Amino acid sequence: MRQERVEPLSKAISGDFNYLAPAEEQRQAFGNMVFATEKMLLARMMRAIGNPPVQIVLWNGQKISNHDENTVARIFIHDRGALLKLVTDPELYFGELYSAQRIEVQGDLLDFLEAVYRVWPLATQDKIGKKLLAPFYDVRRNTLPGARRNIHHHYDIGNDFYKLWLDERMVYTCAYFPNPDTNLEDAQIAKLDHVCRKLRLQPGEKVVEAGCGWGALALHMAKHYGVTVAAYNISSEQVAFARQRAHTEGLDGQIEFIEDDYRNVRGEFDAFVSIGMLEHVGTDHYRELGAVIDRCLKDNGRGLIHSIGLNYPRPMDAWTERHIFPGACPPSLAQMMQIFEPFDFSVLDVENLRLHYARTLEHWLQRYENNIGRVTEMFDAKFVRAWRLYLAGSLTAFKNGGMQLFQVTFARADHNQIPWTRQYLYEPQRTPPGERHGNL
Amino acid sequence: MRQERVEPLSKAISGDFNYLAPAEEQRQAFGNMVFATEKMLLARMMRAIGNPPVQIVLWNGQKISNHDENTVARIFIHDRGALLKLVTDPELYFGELYSAQRIEVQGDLLDFLEAVYRVWPLATQDKIGKKLLAPFYDVRRNTLPGARRNIHHHYDIGNDFYKLWLDERMVYTCAYFPNPDTNLEDAQIAKLDHVCRKLRLQPGEKVVEAGCGWGALALHMAKHYGVTVAAYNISSEQVAFARQRAHTEGLDGQIEFIEDDYRNVRGEFDAFVSIGMLEHVGTDHYRELGAVIDRCLKDNGRGLIHSIGLNYPRPMDAWTERHIFPGACPPSLAQMMQIFEPFDFSVLDVENLRLHYARTLEHWLQRYENNIGRVTEMFDAKFVRAWRLYLAGSLTAFKNGGMQLFQVTFARADHNQIPWTRQYLYEPQRTPPGERHGNL
Repeated sequence: MRQERVEPLSKAISGDFNYLAPAEEQRQAFGNMVFATEKMLLARMMRAIGNPPVQIVLWNGQKISNHDENTVARIFIHDRGALLKLVTDPELYFGELYSAQRIEVQGDLLDFLEAVYRVWPLATQDKIGKKLLAPFYDVRRNTLPGARRNIHHHYDIGNDFYKLWLDERMVYTCAYFPNPDTNLEDAQIAKLDHVCRKLRLQPGEKVVEAGCGWGALALHMAKHYGVTVAAYNISSEQVAFARQRAHTEGLDGQIEFIEDDYRNVRGEFDAFVSIGMLEHVGTDHYRELGAVIDRCLKDNGRGLIHSIGLNYPRPMDAWTERHIFPGACPPSLAQMMQIFEPFDFSVLDVENLRLHYARTLEHWLQRYENNIGRVTEMFDAKFVRAWRLYLAGSLTAFKNGGMQLFQVTFARADHNQIPWTRQYLYEPQRTPPGERHGNL
Repeated sequence: MRQERVEPLSKAISGDFNYLAPAEEQRQAFGNMVFATEKMLLARMMRAIGNPPVQIVLWNGQKISNHDENTVARIFIHDRGALLKLVTDPELYFGELYSAQRIEVQGDLLDFLEAVYRVWPLATQDKIGKKLLAPFYDVRRNTLPGARRNIHHHYDIGNDFYKLWLDERMVYTCAYFPNPDTNLEDAQIAKLDHVCRKLRLQPGEKVVEAGCGWGALALHMAKHYGVTVAAYNISSEQVAFARQRAHTEGLDGQIEFIEDDYRNVRGEFDAFVSIGMLEHVGTDHYRELGAVIDRCLKDNGRGLIHSIGLNYPRPMDAWTERHIFPGACPPSLAQMMQIFEPFDFSVLDVENLRLHYARTLEHWLQRYENNIGRVTEMFDAKFVRAWRLYLAGSLTAFKNGGMQLFQVTFARADHNQIPWTRQYLYEPQRTPPGERHGNL
């Protein structure tokens, strides 16, 4: 992919540090003694995470690094408490301390995250600190009320905030860039079309959408593919917004936005689609989701699930799960199969769009930084920094293969009205959007 | 797909049956008493397999059917022993008894198999008789010597036999039909190209092929993509044939055919490919296969595994496993992931070519029937019937969704030189085969 770097972040951050002379150090015997232990813990942690090429600067100005040359960033640890938390569980506490400005990064945040990502052994990423903190690591469970709380935490923080950095249609999932330099607005439209074409929607068909966000896909399907849509979502802010849009666009006769859980889907449909909801379902509930699909999909129905995924099962990183996406747990492909296998669904196609999500996140992060003044007016400094880290960290994970994006297309086992090849997905659409209704 | 029916089979089969008059029955009191029990067992079996619309004719001419009208076939059971075996385990013994001509089918064999397939409850297919016969159901294990025995059983029965009904290149795996009416020769070339393009082979690269059959893919890769190939196979007849072909085509400098197990692959390669071997590996050995790939694939390497698969894990049907493919066990997608997940491989693309295998089998079965005279000269009647049933049964399973064909493309997690979209697979190749070398 084209390496379009976002603007360096936090270049300006630098404290006012007094570097202590060796003579001074001797006068602080007690402080230095503690410091020796702390340095040892820090060195141990650095080894455990693979010795990333960074320089650490402590609150007294002392610099620590195994890489005197070629460090990608300086990490300032501003107080002893921050250091002690960090060494206990860097995966969880780096984000917390960074958000609270008790740790700061001097240099390009993305370069820093990428450097850490490259060397951090995966086994350690999964284990470090987990044993100590196991009791606190329970992912917040996605029971019916639990799911509502979890979704509210992330999606109900204000539509105006998301408007600042999403595309104009407010699509908060991986876009599809026909070319790497397609702009974000077009790439989101291309994604909506890619999904609709994989589902082979026909005018007059009934579609159920589980987890419909701000309604962009439902609106697109109704407007350009002539289908009726039952769109479920448990985020009340999103549903209110989506209903308003459908009304404005005169599509409220074709789309019903239902503020309810996917488990309560009722009716029979020609297509089931879910874009970016599975991450919040929890692997424990996959069989339940499969049963919902089995119940509501007609014999000749088609389905598509689009979700962040992993190369192998592991929990979401602790900080993101705790502070950004409570209850979230992206699946491996084998885990995803727990939705399909018990019900004899045939997986027809899996497409991994990992680099498309990296590109999407580059756009989002760029827009976020471009609107940082507005974000700062809306939220406190901690929030601003946490979301910067979340966007930059996600971008790094997609770019480095730590996260995947799977689009899985499926149908019932004995359904033979399936495309002979995938060629049709790559042929130009015969009519432009807006004139397509009825021509497909 | 287009429903091109192969010619009806076994139309001519009909015995010389004397239908007994009711008065006659009374004179056979002892026979009828036994018969009542047998009828009960038969009725029970028919219920268990979903009451397919067939008429059964017993050795004394008595007809049994729940469907007086619209039966698709007549099944003749020629002796009491055959009936008793059949009711114990229809999945295993139907094939055995059919091959031995102790059971015969009057009507179109494919229509009969399809009718049975449609009504036979999947749960029963997996369980019926299995408990009773569990000790005998152990799949022949694919240890190093076990795998050799298993492969020898199927692939070393004579190249001349396979030549009768495969395409001219001797490709004994699912073809890829750009259109349903592409002929078999072209569809096999299209498959070889589809695989090479998914692997993005570049001239001068080194490819390892695990399970190379009669060498068609190795020859194609070397000739048209300019790569060198190390091709492994444990079927000695196939290896001898493949070496001869490479020599004839002047490609022996580019291809090494190695008569050895995939577990003994050594060296480093730009691409790993395996077409139709995984079915014989056994799920117990998937992690071992993953370790082989992990060991031999370069950092920027690409991989492709093409295999028959299932919508959910279950053993191969007992008759096929015992008499046709000892040790074979097609995986579900979740099971296949056991190859990739432990080694952090990224699955980039999964394509399900189920209907292409049905179409391939239609061609094979047609050619088999067209050459039935030659087959009869080579083998005994039992073999001829067993292979007819195997080809027809496989065709039915692919057509009805009982079996899948998965092509899985993968790479290492942090390998970003991956195609931006799959568009390139569906663009016309710029140069025809034979002139392509060096231009890709």
